[in-house]
Amino acid sequence: MTISMYEASVPVFSTRLKALSKVLAIAEKNAADRKIDPQVFIGARLAPDMFALARQVQIATDHAKGAPSRLAGREVPKYEDSETTFADLQARIEKTLAHLATFSAKDIDGSDGKSVSLKLGGQEMTLTGLRYLLDVAMPNFYFHVTTAYDILRHNGVPIGKGDYLGTR
Amino acid sequence: MTISMYEASVPVFSTRLKALSKVLAIAEKNAADRKIDPQVFIGARLAPDMFALARQVQIATDHAKGAPSRLAGREVPKYEDSETTFADLQARIEKTLAHLATFSAKDIDGSDGKSVSLKLGGQEMTLTGLRYLLDVAMPNFYFHVTTAYDILRHNGVPIGKGDYLGTR
Repeated sequence: MTISMYEASVPVFSTRLKALSKVLAIAEKNAADRKIDPQVFIGARLAPDMFALARQVQIATDHAKGAPSRLAGREVPKYEDSETTFADLQARIEKTLAHLATFSAKDIDGSDGKSVSLKLGGQEMTLTGLRYLLDVAMPNFYFHVTTAYDILRHNGVPIGKGDYLGTR
Repeated sequence: MTISMYEASVPVFSTRLKALSKVLAIAEKNAADRKIDPQVFIGARLAPDMFALARQVQIATDHAKGAPSRLAGREVPKYEDSETTFADLQARIEKTLAHLATFSAKDIDGSDGKSVSLKLGGQEMTLTGLRYLLDVAMPNFYFHVTTAYDILRHNGVPIGKGDYLGTR
């Protein structure tokens, strides 16, 4: 037996984004508790030339909305990338979860051999659905979800691995 | 068509670990260039109660050696967790890559419905091979590989997303 392309994509994105939403909620509450301007967290970054928290969440959701859309041969929804508050970021995650919920197994399954074209890092690339999911979408998605967590953890937000995993 | 359990596990771990090995090599060279004691990087962490770089690499390789072993029904190799230098960490990654190379598709395929038992965070759990791979092994593996990268990036090591992805 094997894994369906649907199982390896849509529920993975949804599970991780729900956990990220809770992590962001803890961060927002923690900012209030510590009387820290929430913008400090929203704009926090791990290095001067790395993306800040808001952008990490934007890119994570970009991969989560882009991958199933491309695998299903649908248009990728365009987001404005104008989020500047925790409420904005939560709304973006909600919107992405709603988009993910529009896909059923039959939309995605069978897309492993499908040809997928996308622009990434300014480069146009064409690859199979399988390679796109495993080599582009997943590693990028996990990178930005983890880095969002790492930024908040670095700033003293009381989160742990269980919050990232969504198991608590 | 679908993804084989082998394709979704062994080559993913190998590709990411090879990229992590290069990231660590850049970090080691960067320490020498900047006349920084390599131990500063080895012991660097993003928060006082987060694991340092060496431990991040250890846990990433734990998941990479553990997942295929458990899915194939083989004993998980025990590592001493005694790495204290970049050379030690590289050797651990090499050892893990060599272990990964011992698996072929027939060892792993068909393990999605197999019952897998493991102890994680002090808790004994039993779940299917599919859920173990997608909900435990992959998110944990990606978490520690990304956090190792984030620690080094935070410390000014000249690495970029392409190094994490292994595309440069």
